[in-house]
Amino acid sequence: MKMTKGGITAPKGFTASGMSAGIKKSGKKDLVLIYSEQECEAAGLFTTNKVQASCVVINKQHLKNGKAQAIIANSGNANCMTGKKGFADSRTMASAVAKLLDLSKQDVLVASTGVIGQPLPIKKIVTAVPVLVGALKRSGSKDAALGILTTDRTVKEVATEIIIGKTKVRIGAIAKGAGMIHPQMGPPSAPSSAKGYGRAQQGYGGAKHATMLCFVSTDAAIAPTALRVALNTAVENSFNMITIDGDMSTNDMVLLLANGMAKNKLITKDSKEATVFGVALQSLFLTLAKLMVRDAEGATKFIELDVTGARSTKDARKVARSIASSNLVKCALFGSDPNWGRIAAAAGYSGAHVDPWKMRIYIGKELVLKNGGPTNVATAVLDAAFAKKDIQIHVDLGLGKQTAIAYTCDLSTSYVKKNSAYRT
Amino acid sequence: MKMTKGGITAPKGFTASGMSAGIKKSGKKDLVLIYSEQECEAAGLFTTNKVQASCVVINKQHLKNGKAQAIIANSGNANCMTGKKGFADSRTMASAVAKLLDLSKQDVLVASTGVIGQPLPIKKIVTAVPVLVGALKRSGSKDAALGILTTDRTVKEVATEIIIGKTKVRIGAIAKGAGMIHPQMGPPSAPSSAKGYGRAQQGYGGAKHATMLCFVSTDAAIAPTALRVALNTAVENSFNMITIDGDMSTNDMVLLLANGMAKNKLITKDSKEATVFGVALQSLFLTLAKLMVRDAEGATKFIELDVTGARSTKDARKVARSIASSNLVKCALFGSDPNWGRIAAAAGYSGAHVDPWKMRIYIGKELVLKNGGPTNVATAVLDAAFAKKDIQIHVDLGLGKQTAIAYTCDLSTSYVKKNSAYRT
Repeated sequence: MKMTKGGITAPKGFTASGMSAGIKKSGKKDLVLIYSEQECEAAGLFTTNKVQASCVVINKQHLKNGKAQAIIANSGNANCMTGKKGFADSRTMASAVAKLLDLSKQDVLVASTGVIGQPLPIKKIVTAVPVLVGALKRSGSKDAALGILTTDRTVKEVATEIIIGKTKVRIGAIAKGAGMIHPQMGPPSAPSSAKGYGRAQQGYGGAKHATMLCFVSTDAAIAPTALRVALNTAVENSFNMITIDGDMSTNDMVLLLANGMAKNKLITKDSKEATVFGVALQSLFLTLAKLMVRDAEGATKFIELDVTGARSTKDARKVARSIASSNLVKCALFGSDPNWGRIAAAAGYSGAHVDPWKMRIYIGKELVLKNGGPTNVATAVLDAAFAKKDIQIHVDLGLGKQTAIAYTCDLSTSYVKKNSAYRT
Repeated sequence: MKMTKGGITAPKGFTASGMSAGIKKSGKKDLVLIYSEQECEAAGLFTTNKVQASCVVINKQHLKNGKAQAIIANSGNANCMTGKKGFADSRTMASAVAKLLDLSKQDVLVASTGVIGQPLPIKKIVTAVPVLVGALKRSGSKDAALGILTTDRTVKEVATEIIIGKTKVRIGAIAKGAGMIHPQMGPPSAPSSAKGYGRAQQGYGGAKHATMLCFVSTDAAIAPTALRVALNTAVENSFNMITIDGDMSTNDMVLLLANGMAKNKLITKDSKEATVFGVALQSLFLTLAKLMVRDAEGATKFIELDVTGARSTKDARKVARSIASSNLVKCALFGSDPNWGRIAAAAGYSGAHVDPWKMRIYIGKELVLKNGGPTNVATAVLDAAFAKKDIQIHVDLGLGKQTAIAYTCDLSTSYVKKNSAYRT
């Protein structure tokens, strides 16, 4: 797939802006707006954590009609576990944008990432919104991509062009995430236990709280069901298959806006065009998901975990994520210690069907386990395979035909240091 | 409960020995024997990992008749993922003991812990067994307790006396475990996928591989069903509620031998005496489980996680273990960073029923979260609560009456260092 420039503003009719509203003490960009000049078909996937930030709960409400036209997002404060005030503040963010852009409040989506348990400095945000709206521009993707970062070291911004019928259609996206990354996002119908009441109180502020956010724009004309299917499938095979530290955030979300301005033949569910769109979307998400893992807090290595031969796709995913989440496997990878026994153990406790006598494990191209025991691969060869910066681990369960791929990083002393003293 | 001396040889009729057979390069004790002069009612609980060491598979077979009289255990080599040779070696260990002590092979149980994927030096073991048998003595508990250690820094040995009817009954136990600790042990009926065939091959040896082992002796006369119920309940509320690194081992086991030599009135299921026995057993296991967590690789803190107000016991256990396993929570504890938001997030992704508006979180006695937001507890107070070496975290879910307690440690840079370069 050809990658193009322009990020989230590559598709027709989208503008974006990013600025510092003074939420981050560093003075870096922390407030972002994404806007489509026409109302969009919209869909979102959200953290399945039962503890959800107010923005997650409110977006689910706003997406009930399947429409949206703008996204306002802040970094530096997750506005999570902030009681009733938190919910009011998220609504105020949406209202401020809606008023200035003459939109229905329901057409504005909200996202927050950063410190938890601390009241959002909502006055700073409300004061900044007119500037933010004024700064909207066709080349604003980079500013927006910068403005959602927290512990990330790199900007995460992608775009592509596909042909639907004979029409060029563009998809663009920005994302953030480097820690508290173990997404398991589901559709808004997944129940939330938050009820919108409560009481915010001043107090200790907590610490940084990373999250994954991904905002996606497209000028495709696409039917709502086709949009949802494409989004669900793409997320399931990308963001939902990465892990950095095994901790699922309270704020994870992917929001997709499709404004139809490419004027392509409408993409309908199960059509050939839906496949083209879905493949492109998944490819963009995979690129972003891998960027997150490469940018993971303290990571020194990038690991691809291929599981084959599973009885079911669910089993394959379980095994891949179990190994990708194992602290012992990740410590061994950090130390370039070719400890494949830990990989076998993590497969064994994944909950999937695993037969140790049928399982084969490959590190890169080296077969290290078969017939329930070690192969005769030389120590030096294995050491070299584990010493690489990019490592592919392949587990063939030998039980069926289903497969899955997960991505993870190593667990380093630097990760522990970063996350043991992360006050803001 | 009164703790007594004597460890696993405190009960009548038990002897033990421990020696160096040359399995560990350090020359430390690595071969252990526990023997009862009378045949015992026996029961075991084993790792539910689908990848199981040969000793686990063989013990399940040997325990089918509910009888045993001796346990031989080695440290320094887990004899796991060693193919067909591994199974033959475990059987050889049992046979060597059976022959010298004139027992049925089936009455000898086997345990291994240490390096994985490396052939067991079975000749060294067979050569040592006569010495091991000759060294059996009533005061041998300490030698046995030393001989099963791997990465442990402290010996784990307990004993107690209880009164059954009017008769004194003794229970003793030894244990080991400091890493790869996230036990979820079940009865032998839990299916194993290992089939006893395969092929061992020379090759790279892997690295150290900790595990939890616990061997228990009692001179109680106890009916088999009462023994099983007491063992299952005690393990469920002790070892199965600790976690060090979230990695379930392939070799975890608890073996209990009851020789009846106290000549008490037979303890039957659901009797008052069964409760007395069960409470004592659980108390011993809790002591050992806490010793493991305090001895955890790299740990600088001991954390007790109390969950109350859950809809079900299962939910309470899920929440407790989820928080206890969270890397981000454990990093915060290492850094004395009072980041209670991570605790809330880990409760939220536990899979249990959680309502963020009803949940309350206490650090020590300090209430930090209620009504979905922070309380006004002073930063200095919270800092002090998190700076302690022993920290109690209490999560009241506010949804029901069920409770659970889990134990864990912090995640330190030292843990990562130890487990990233753990060659032997």
